[in-house]
Amino acid sequence: MTKIDSIDFYYLSMPEVLDIGDGSQDALLVRVAAGDHVGWGECEAAPLVSIASLVCPMSHSACKPVMASVLGQSIDSVDDIRKIGNSVRANSMDLLQADHTLSGIDIALWDLLGRRLSEPVWKLLGYEKCFGKMPYASVLFGDTANETFLKAQTIAGQGFRAAKFGWGKFGLTSVDDDQDQLNAARQGLGKDGILLVDAGTVWNTDVDAARSRLKGLKEVRATWLEEPFVSGALSEYHSLSMDSGPVGLAGGEGCHNFQMAKHMIDLAGLKYIQIDAGRIGGITIAKDVADYAARKGVTYVNHTFTSNLALSASLQSYAGLESHLICEFPTELKLLAMAMTKNHIVPDENGMLNVPDSPGLGIEPDLQGIAPYLVEAEIRVRGKQIYTTPPLR
Amino acid sequence: MTKIDSIDFYYLSMPEVLDIGDGSQDALLVRVAAGDHVGWGECEAAPLVSIASLVCPMSHSACKPVMASVLGQSIDSVDDIRKIGNSVRANSMDLLQADHTLSGIDIALWDLLGRRLSEPVWKLLGYEKCFGKMPYASVLFGDTANETFLKAQTIAGQGFRAAKFGWGKFGLTSVDDDQDQLNAARQGLGKDGILLVDAGTVWNTDVDAARSRLKGLKEVRATWLEEPFVSGALSEYHSLSMDSGPVGLAGGEGCHNFQMAKHMIDLAGLKYIQIDAGRIGGITIAKDVADYAARKGVTYVNHTFTSNLALSASLQSYAGLESHLICEFPTELKLLAMAMTKNHIVPDENGMLNVPDSPGLGIEPDLQGIAPYLVEAEIRVRGKQIYTTPPLR
Repeated sequence: MTKIDSIDFYYLSMPEVLDIGDGSQDALLVRVAAGDHVGWGECEAAPLVSIASLVCPMSHSACKPVMASVLGQSIDSVDDIRKIGNSVRANSMDLLQADHTLSGIDIALWDLLGRRLSEPVWKLLGYEKCFGKMPYASVLFGDTANETFLKAQTIAGQGFRAAKFGWGKFGLTSVDDDQDQLNAARQGLGKDGILLVDAGTVWNTDVDAARSRLKGLKEVRATWLEEPFVSGALSEYHSLSMDSGPVGLAGGEGCHNFQMAKHMIDLAGLKYIQIDAGRIGGITIAKDVADYAARKGVTYVNHTFTSNLALSASLQSYAGLESHLICEFPTELKLLAMAMTKNHIVPDENGMLNVPDSPGLGIEPDLQGIAPYLVEAEIRVRGKQIYTTPPLR
Repeated sequence: MTKIDSIDFYYLSMPEVLDIGDGSQDALLVRVAAGDHVGWGECEAAPLVSIASLVCPMSHSACKPVMASVLGQSIDSVDDIRKIGNSVRANSMDLLQADHTLSGIDIALWDLLGRRLSEPVWKLLGYEKCFGKMPYASVLFGDTANETFLKAQTIAGQGFRAAKFGWGKFGLTSVDDDQDQLNAARQGLGKDGILLVDAGTVWNTDVDAARSRLKGLKEVRATWLEEPFVSGALSEYHSLSMDSGPVGLAGGEGCHNFQMAKHMIDLAGLKYIQIDAGRIGGITIAKDVADYAARKGVTYVNHTFTSNLALSASLQSYAGLESHLICEFPTELKLLAMAMTKNHIVPDENGMLNVPDSPGLGIEPDLQGIAPYLVEAEIRVRGKQIYTTPPLR
């Protein structure tokens, strides 16, 4: 039996974080070690808060720090990973942040087990074969329609067959302004490109506001409209889906457990369920959702806006589902996210993205590359240090 | 216009926190000041994590520290409170802990506004009259059936007409053991007492395990079975509700936004929706849920396992709903939770609990009483202190 000896959380950040919707400006890198074995993972967003949830003092029996359910546990099999996840969910039930924190640990445990057994994670997940995914370049809308046009043109020039534009001012100004942006994206991309639009929850729960954009979305033949509403607004999603016709609804990135994703699949009228392995509870739960989506005829798509480590993690869960073709591929990553790993996932000669066919996640962290971005953090309670940035190792 | 000048988070804790389901072992007290006005609130559980989410560096435009959406905002009206909540939910969308953190701030803002306008919060919420609630003594199951019997007898002797037993080993051993516990509770309480049972999510999503306890629950005439499953297990709740007959299902304490509570009301077959104002986003969202529950014929109940400040906050949202009669009243509070406030909410001569009829929440924090429980905490990022325990003031 191999026991988990250590869990190291590394807070990484660009020197300056801008007030834009770019999720690659910081990262929480996770290292788990058990005996001679090591695995790497990543939690999505708010590094300091996830660090606090790893090490905080216990509030009561169902509100323990995440560390308490992981350190010292056996890690010899896939079952052990699930057992650890279940234990975190029970012991940290009243600690809201715990699902995000667990996510990075779960990813690292899959990486560790894959490296140890010399198998890629997708094989450990039960897939016999993995299939290339068609990446969509995932970018923010330009500040002006013309900027969006140029972005779209660049993406098409790079050989991408699909692109997603999101956030920026979309949905915040007028229907006409939004239409200009949509037209610019379509023109830049060319008539055959797959155009995806991400509203970034801008209409909250306002179905009419979202509905007023459907005409324009249909005109530019958008394949999907993503997150018109806040995650979990099931009836609003469902209502909009009645009118959206060929524009499929996409959503689910905010889900932080299986139940929430299940409801989005069952009740929201989605065509696409988007799951972030760094939030939902890791690869374990992401795979549960992929299986469920496949059974229910909803297409699974990864949500990823950070490093290639997170990208590999997010692709594993549906690597073997051939007809779930499309995948998110952030192409405007900050230097930090590029520097984090020695190897990178890039489209092949056919423009397809392939999940690494090497042990674990197949991504090697670049400790030298990371070093300049490492943020020193320290937490003290009652004068005792309960967290300090661990040495990179 | 009065602007919010400061938000102080005070981490309080018993000297020793035990590994039991008692949520009164620590607390996060919130003080908000605007000009000459002050209000007090409380966040539920994991103080250090909520502190981190208040002050952490921004990750991106939708993952800002909670502080960023509160400090400097106007607080002159009820609308201002809602505006601040909406802003936190948008700006901290990807910061999972934010809903719990906002909850304590929202509660403090209602207290502040009520004190300033010399009105109790329930009046500001639009209720013209408030009604006494029938408190149920909320305790943990004893380690043995006999201990449970003695607890029940004590509760009945104190004049309570209702009692809830929860957690402990219930659901973890055999159906027979659970039956012994249930029988002991009923015997101790007497035949007329209202008996409530809290399974504390022990069966996760296992409907059969929960169903096997229904016979016993019916035999002892339990009024409700609370949290047989994890929060959000809508179909499992609904399935169990088909067989539970006179034993109503209760749940919802895990909900951290309006949507989640709405789904529990609409889709889980609940008779009772239990909301913790310290988790759902504060009094604002708790009131939204109370209104919705009333419309849908589901009974609203507070979830409270901490101080009398939290208790007052949690009662305000349904203070004016006469037929939503029952309320949770933790009666085994740790010394900390008693010491936190100068005044306390106690049953009147008829055994009823009355929401304070004084400005704000009507509860005065006891700064001297709190002092011994204050936990010194400090967070440093890049060598700079971003949080230290503020002086009690």
